[in-house]
Amino acid sequence: MQTIDVGIIMGSKSDLPIMQAAADILKSFNISFEMDIVSAHRTPEKMFAYANDAHKRGLKVIIAGAGGAAHLPGMVASITPLPVVGVPIKSSNSIDGWDSLLSIVQMPNGIPVATVAVNAAQNAGILAAKIIAASDKILLEKILEFKKSLKEKVIASSEELKNPSPKKYL
Amino acid sequence: MQTIDVGIIMGSKSDLPIMQAAADILKSFNISFEMDIVSAHRTPEKMFAYANDAHKRGLKVIIAGAGGAAHLPGMVASITPLPVVGVPIKSSNSIDGWDSLLSIVQMPNGIPVATVAVNAAQNAGILAAKIIAASDKILLEKILEFKKSLKEKVIASSEELKNPSPKKYL
Amino acid sequence: MQTIDVGIIMGSKSDLPIMQAAADILKSFNISFEMDIVSAHRTPEKMFAYANDAHKRGLKVIIAGAGGAAHLPGMVASITPLPVVGVPIKSSNSIDGWDSLLSIVQMPNGIPVATVAVNAAQNAGILAAKIIAASDKILLEKILEFKKSLKEKVIASSEELKNPSPKKYL
Amino acid sequence: MQTIDVGIIMGSKSDLPIMQAAADILKSFNISFEMDIVSAHRTPEKMFAYANDAHKRGLKVIIAGAGGAAHLPGMVASITPLPVVGVPIKSSNSIDGWDSLLSIVQMPNGIPVATVAVNAAQNAGILAAKIIAASDKILLEKILEFKKSLKEKVIASSEELKNPSPKKYL
Amino acid sequence: MQTIDVGIIMGSKSDLPIMQAAADILKSFNISFEMDIVSAHRTPEKMFAYANDAHKRGLKVIIAGAGGAAHLPGMVASITPLPVVGVPIKSSNSIDGWDSLLSIVQMPNGIPVATVAVNAAQNAGILAAKIIAASDKILLEKILEFKKSLKEKVIASSEELKNPSPKKYL
Amino acid sequence: MQTIDVGIIMGSKSDLPIMQAAADILKSFNISFEMDIVSAHRTPEKMFAYANDAHKRGLKVIIAGAGGAAHLPGMVASITPLPVVGVPIKSSNSIDGWDSLLSIVQMPNGIPVATVAVNAAQNAGILAAKIIAASDKILLEKILEFKKSLKEKVIASSEELKNPSPKKYL
Amino acid sequence: MQTIDVGIIMGSKSDLPIMQAAADILKSFNISFEMDIVSAHRTPEKMFAYANDAHKRGLKVIIAGAGGAAHLPGMVASITPLPVVGVPIKSSNSIDGWDSLLSIVQMPNGIPVATVAVNAAQNAGILAAKIIAASDKILLEKILEFKKSLKEKVIASSEELKNPSPKKYL
Amino acid sequence: MQTIDVGIIMGSKSDLPIMQAAADILKSFNISFEMDIVSAHRTPEKMFAYANDAHKRGLKVIIAGAGGAAHLPGMVASITPLPVVGVPIKSSNSIDGWDSLLSIVQMPNGIPVATVAVNAAQNAGILAAKIIAASDKILLEKILEFKKSLKEKVIASSEELKNPSPKKYL
Repeated sequence: MQTIDVGIIMGSKSDLPIMQAAADILKSFNISFEMDIVSAHRTPEKMFAYANDAHKRGLKVIIAGAGGAAHLPGMVASITPLPVVGVPIKSSNSIDGWDSLLSIVQMPNGIPVATVAVNAAQNAGILAAKIIAASDKILLEKILEFKKSLKEKVIASSEELKNPSPKKYL
Repeated sequence: MQTIDVGIIMGSKSDLPIMQAAADILKSFNISFEMDIVSAHRTPEKMFAYANDAHKRGLKVIIAGAGGAAHLPGMVASITPLPVVGVPIKSSNSIDGWDSLLSIVQMPNGIPVATVAVNAAQNAGILAAKIIAASDKILLEKILEFKKSLKEKVIASSEELKNPSPKKYL
Repeated sequence: MQTIDVGIIMGSKSDLPIMQAAADILKSFNISFEMDIVSAHRTPEKMFAYANDAHKRGLKVIIAGAGGAAHLPGMVASITPLPVVGVPIKSSNSIDGWDSLLSIVQMPNGIPVATVAVNAAQNAGILAAKIIAASDKILLEKILEFKKSLKEKVIASSEELKNPSPKKYL
Repeated sequence: MQTIDVGIIMGSKSDLPIMQAAADILKSFNISFEMDIVSAHRTPEKMFAYANDAHKRGLKVIIAGAGGAAHLPGMVASITPLPVVGVPIKSSNSIDGWDSLLSIVQMPNGIPVATVAVNAAQNAGILAAKIIAASDKILLEKILEFKKSLKEKVIASSEELKNPSPKKYL
Repeated sequence: MQTIDVGIIMGSKSDLPIMQAAADILKSFNISFEMDIVSAHRTPEKMFAYANDAHKRGLKVIIAGAGGAAHLPGMVASITPLPVVGVPIKSSNSIDGWDSLLSIVQMPNGIPVATVAVNAAQNAGILAAKIIAASDKILLEKILEFKKSLKEKVIASSEELKNPSPKKYL
Repeated sequence: MQTIDVGIIMGSKSDLPIMQAAADILKSFNISFEMDIVSAHRTPEKMFAYANDAHKRGLKVIIAGAGGAAHLPGMVASITPLPVVGVPIKSSNSIDGWDSLLSIVQMPNGIPVATVAVNAAQNAGILAAKIIAASDKILLEKILEFKKSLKEKVIASSEELKNPSPKKYL
Repeated sequence: MQTIDVGIIMGSKSDLPIMQAAADILKSFNISFEMDIVSAHRTPEKMFAYANDAHKRGLKVIIAGAGGAAHLPGMVASITPLPVVGVPIKSSNSIDGWDSLLSIVQMPNGIPVATVAVNAAQNAGILAAKIIAASDKILLEKILEFKKSLKEKVIASSEELKNPSPKKYL
Repeated sequence: MQTIDVGIIMGSKSDLPIMQAAADILKSFNISFEMDIVSAHRTPEKMFAYANDAHKRGLKVIIAGAGGAAHLPGMVASITPLPVVGVPIKSSNSIDGWDSLLSIVQMPNGIPVATVAVNAAQNAGILAAKIIAASDKILLEKILEFKKSLKEKVIASSEELKNPSPKKYL
């Protein structure tokens, strides 16, 4: 049986359009993942069980997204020994993302959450990949290639800016 | 066996100097209470059990104080059918109380926390008393008397200000 | 004559689209309520009379919503012995809801307002129900059922996410 | 009987060290004033009566200072036809003065409060003087002299900086 | 020759849609006013001259609106002995109005600006009327009537809410 | 030759009292680490070289702390394929930690930094341990034990609170 | 060979619509400039080389725009001896521009960035012109003329406001 | 007669302990400067004259520091064609420096202020030096040397950290 490396969870179905970007980037790295809706506030037992079993099922990283008073990443981190990547979501419940960000990043001593930028689910996926790559030379090479591709896109847009006319962008 | 009406819980021993004010005011109203340290992040199972059993044990209100990414009030509210009063604590972990306040007040639909001002544990106790008094005429009378005593203190300090000289305050 | 349990008041007609959610959820719990427009700033005498009489008329909880420099919940709480639930409204007068939130939650010692999230009138209704249920076993059961229904909706959306394809959400 | 021109009120005795500066500057302009403690939240009836009678007693301006969820200036302004100058106080109840400032300045249409800077009771006194001077040529002259004295102090400190050595300030 | 009581100035033509509300309410009180564009940053000499002459021309109050790093109200207040009412404008240059608000309200000792809420030009007009009414019994009566009309509108919308059905608002 | 697992770097010697906590917790987990001062702004070449070589030297995680406009964690993350844990430091250069936090957490797409709470260097160390443990069963066990010890401390302080008297804490 | 005076760089192609305004105003002053996309995070080596060579190539000022955790202006300033003008961009990655602003302005001792307002690329161009004009009398004259043209536009809109009717603006 | 290159001005004598750092660093670069107290609000005519004459007297850069609603840098920039460096000061009048920062940096189109970090007068001096060096090769060399000295201090503290024991810092 093939194990799954990354669990992507979110507090509500409405978070999926944001969280999908984490799945997409993991797929591009050929990292196996699962996605689920696990609400700290509406399904606390499921959240508890998920966090408790994750490392036993072979997961290596959990990515958790939530908005407003966002307790899912921190609560999962309080239970699992695995690294938890938190994605603050600027939902309609949120005051411009400030509440989501502070509820996730300001965790007390003993219980860190690896927080990324507001709505930055793609970065959560990349961070999960870097975490796995810390002990996986082949994936580390892929990440170096990914970084090269980021660079090449910037170089290409630099060329485009310099040749014919910058006006075309406007 | 006498039941207890209010449970006062806090995330850490260091929150006690703030949370004691909730106990003191409940005592002045002759409302029975218990105090405990229950950490959402360090003792999630205890938190879970506490929230799950509170209404079965006869509690009527839970007061929960926490600082930083303050998940205790919201997590307890997600489990118990009882009203939960949340006290945002401006701890050394906190960014001036903003994180505590937003983590407690900005709860998602379905799971309210009755939030009071930063560090306002006395007000949490008064709110618990008002909640119980909503179905208890005798306690309602005591609250009216308490309000009268607040008024009398202001009247007295007004008198003091007007007679001899305001300079003595400075 | 049947008494009314909850009074829902708001500072302006324009707050009604937000505050209606409090009425709807109370109706679903079969809790009797009344709705009115009571402005702290434009009808101070009416506000005063409303707050003064509420407990005499048999109300158990007052829900008050207001935006900007939102004084209605706090002023009502200063007069009534009943618990007051405050709903900060992000109106066009408001700086992203920060002014409404702080004007309602940061009440001085002695005068608590049970504050919920910005625009969270539904949660205000649920909190009112929990407050009444603190002394009403039958209502307490209904709240437990309500919490179960929240859970079931999350479970259903979790199933929907896992089966056929998550793409359909996007 | 001599009438009093300015009423200085504050929500609590603890606001007096800040509010005294309003009294001192009014005295220096020879403007008559009275000082009192009037709490919107603890003495709502007294606040109501004060605001209702002020213009009948001949007051021309009311200065009101309060901290935290500061409702005193706005509530007084909702009742009196007189101009109300609001002083946001950064009390121990306050989140760095943000709550006091927003609760006072963000008043709804119809009910302005003339808000000054956080803790700026001296400026509240000067503003009251300018308001009275709007219809009083002699006082207007005094204000022009006061402005000249501000200028002279800056000129003097400029001289002091340039002659012998700036080091003496450090 | 008839004198003008209130000068309404603004930093830019783009502020006019907001500032017009000050003119409209003054007109309704029959208070004479003038409107002009005076930029502290682009026409500093004109600003200087305007502020210097205002009281000589018989103006009683100046209303000044500006956005972003809003220096117009404070600079005018530094020059004129008249009361200056400042309107923070949430322009496209502004960070949600925070910069406008703080640049206007946080004036140093000696130089107050009577600040109203973000975009609250109508309230600036009402405040100017209250300032003039402080020495004008007839205008004071009009303001009392204006307050009564505010009350009546709220009472009317309260009636509308209670009779047939609240649904019609939604 | 023994490799080192974690590199702890900071922008200035003055960050050491905060960052030492990362070293202390790694030591308690028996994880090898190195500490150095590497300034993005004052030693950009050294920063560049450090980030470029880290994975070649066998490091698995980099912890970077900085205050104010804190560019060190993000710049290192832009160069290295390793996961970078960022610690926002509330230095004397900082506006209450807001600048440090936002400069570290709000990274653009492609370049995540695993951000922890303001000044939370201990949590940065724990997160580094969790990252390494993602591929190291023995370390995973140690982390589970560490979590148990956190729980036991809370249980002990709970016992202490309940027996003789809560007064002793005060 | 003609040298270029100003280098305009930005972190991403998506910043061009904002940054174009810097180019346009420099063109109006007849100041030579170049534009390029240089990402601190995606092309750190290019950024390094650009900053290192700029003064050798004869550039006098660098204008750098970036959003979110905006490290480009500060990193370039850490390498070049030239003055760097930073433009905080309110991109879709940004929390209302707060992160961009703080990441650029709050630089540590030794490494200033001349920061302008959020999205104020035109002002960045004007500041670059003023910097060059500090040693160029002819350009200084042009800047005085530019200031005169700003004044004339305000005077013209003042005339327009006073004649026929202000209604036409609305 | 020797001309002076940089004018350092501040709104109040109390700003001198902060602003002195600008003088000290300019002295270390052998750049001539003058210091004065010029208040936008208390000495508007002097401010006007200073800004109007500065370039005629041969100044190349003006450094202006102010706190609270800090109008000095922007007002001077509105009058002078010279580059103005603004230092936001976190004075006792200020809300944690937010008001000072926003009042200085958020200038409207046409009137830039080169803003540095809160209280960063040393950086203001360095920026002035970089501005003058843009047309002065010898000074440019000195700035490169200064940057080297910053680097050497970091390298030295790095050595100190690695050898004997990091404990000595604590």
